[in-house]
Amino acid sequence: MTSGETSLGDLGERALVQRIRERIPAGEGVVVGAGDDAAAVELAAVALVTTDSLVEGVHFRRDLAPARLVGRKALSVNLSDVAAMGGIGRYAVVGLCLPASVSAYWVDSLFDGLLERAAESGVSVVGGNVSATWDAIVVDVTLLGETPRPVLRSGARAGDVVVVTGSLGAAAEGLRLLAQGARLDDDGQLAAAGPWTESSAGAVLDCLRAQLDPRPPLGLARSLAEHELARAAIDVSDGLSADLAEMCRQSGVAARIEASAVPVASGVIGLERARGRDPLELALHGGEDYELLLAVEPRRFEELQELARVWGTPVSGIGEFYAAAPAVLIRDASGERPLEPRGHDHFRSASTPHRRQP
Amino acid sequence: MTSGETSLGDLGERALVQRIRERIPAGEGVVVGAGDDAAAVELAAVALVTTDSLVEGVHFRRDLAPARLVGRKALSVNLSDVAAMGGIGRYAVVGLCLPASVSAYWVDSLFDGLLERAAESGVSVVGGNVSATWDAIVVDVTLLGETPRPVLRSGARAGDVVVVTGSLGAAAEGLRLLAQGARLDDDGQLAAAGPWTESSAGAVLDCLRAQLDPRPPLGLARSLAEHELARAAIDVSDGLSADLAEMCRQSGVAARIEASAVPVASGVIGLERARGRDPLELALHGGEDYELLLAVEPRRFEELQELARVWGTPVSGIGEFYAAAPAVLIRDASGERPLEPRGHDHFRSASTPHRRQP
Repeated sequence: MTSGETSLGDLGERALVQRIRERIPAGEGVVVGAGDDAAAVELAAVALVTTDSLVEGVHFRRDLAPARLVGRKALSVNLSDVAAMGGIGRYAVVGLCLPASVSAYWVDSLFDGLLERAAESGVSVVGGNVSATWDAIVVDVTLLGETPRPVLRSGARAGDVVVVTGSLGAAAEGLRLLAQGARLDDDGQLAAAGPWTESSAGAVLDCLRAQLDPRPPLGLARSLAEHELARAAIDVSDGLSADLAEMCRQSGVAARIEASAVPVASGVIGLERARGRDPLELALHGGEDYELLLAVEPRRFEELQELARVWGTPVSGIGEFYAAAPAVLIRDASGERPLEPRGHDHFRSASTPHRRQP
Repeated sequence: MTSGETSLGDLGERALVQRIRERIPAGEGVVVGAGDDAAAVELAAVALVTTDSLVEGVHFRRDLAPARLVGRKALSVNLSDVAAMGGIGRYAVVGLCLPASVSAYWVDSLFDGLLERAAESGVSVVGGNVSATWDAIVVDVTLLGETPRPVLRSGARAGDVVVVTGSLGAAAEGLRLLAQGARLDDDGQLAAAGPWTESSAGAVLDCLRAQLDPRPPLGLARSLAEHELARAAIDVSDGLSADLAEMCRQSGVAARIEASAVPVASGVIGLERARGRDPLELALHGGEDYELLLAVEPRRFEELQELARVWGTPVSGIGEFYAAAPAVLIRDASGERPLEPRGHDHFRSASTPHRRQP
């Protein structure tokens, strides 16, 4: 056992890798697990594969996000991509870049969260790679999955309903709260509410959790594919405005949504109004929601609602696709206007809330 | 078209991703390629999966390695792992962490090499992820593959021959040459020989290529699995001493090797002798050889040699496994002594030849 103060430099690479391997449980379908040159796993004839990274200073900050939640989120963002194909995750490999100054405790906590999330979602961790780096931690997860039939971004047709699962804006609100000093502890409980009082604690907790520990609608996603209920799907990671524009572009259709129908997360409504801001903005452009955006035939929308009730996942019809050059319009009391995507550009942002102070 | 001076900050994330996607050719078995939430690919019932990263300042330096060769090596190190399972690579996903200051030209060159290496080895690139970072470039590749039967590290038995493919030490020698100012150009041709004269140019070229553009014995590896010729396999990435110790540990046997039988790369012999050093040291401990270390039944060694001739890959029997607690002995004219692994520890090295000067 090492103390909380042990750094990776003290521990050494071999001991770290050994320590990680020993924690990985055996998994169904795993023919050869971590510890050989490659893993060997049983998979359906058509497999899904996706990869996504969390980079320190870009996607998280060590002083703002407990390591356990970074581990959970590193898997969740990949689960969201597989869900958006109508699939389930089966096997994950984890690539870590770690500065030698990181504590062994931090890495242990990261794997606490990652393995816990894997167990929750039926995923087996089957291998990975550890490398030193000189600066920022990188947690790179590649997820293999299966689906009865892939649901693409390109399947939306004129007349289909624009559907979104869950509610939007809470993850972006969570980022604002982190900047104000609000915090979760290792267990995902509220450790600090920043400037907010007791009456807002529930909203603050919900939004911090949406940012630090997103829960994509995995069960509903798989059922949608089984029942062929969605003609197209994309996960809402760059923000509704950007992801709907992308679905329109790939499907060759336009979309019109009703501002009043967009499911703004309840916590966002209270907190943004208290700030004197329009909560809808975060729901439209905030990003990192890890909900699903779907195109559904109108005659099947009711069936979808029933299935969504079974899974306890709210679904909202927020507009329709129509035949026109790819574009997104939004309608409110003042009329109809184009909804321009305001997705985050990694290389053009001079700063991000996650960048450490120099 | 952008000029060589365009940075990723100028180009923007969306344009970069679009630019990369447009270059990726369609591939056999690719049901859904790059551009959706996840890729969907056809695979055998048992799939291989492995992941490995190249980190700037740890595994490469931008001023020492042409981007095209970094791209080639990022795939090759993963091909080596799949080869060591007796498999072939099928599909790759690529995670990139890039500072905004990197030029679009650098990323284009990286993909020149990566896609070229993919085409050579029958691999389809099916997706990936791009993220900003504040400092070091990270190229993370996950490779999916197939094998008629996985060849494990743990299958070596007492009496088996210790076999190594190709020759050893050249990649480590290449690192010394880079530190001396020797360079390859984008096309993998000799651009500078450092302090070495014309008569050493061939040796310098071979060793730089071994370091910057390793070529694992992919064809032979697959044939070995088909013919069940290897009882155990591991790729020589940490150095013969470390990887043989690992095979012994996992197989529960000891090994004894003959110093005179170790296939030291011819370039290493000339260059190390000119330095007044023992070439064997690099062959035993240098690492990054990306050759295969095998355990082969003595009665099948001749068959292996014939197969190796077909593939044009030299193989050397360098010793034998025997029943004892895991350990490695080396025998030379002065007698027999333990061969201690001197593998590189990422977190314990105060510096690496690839670390940029502060």
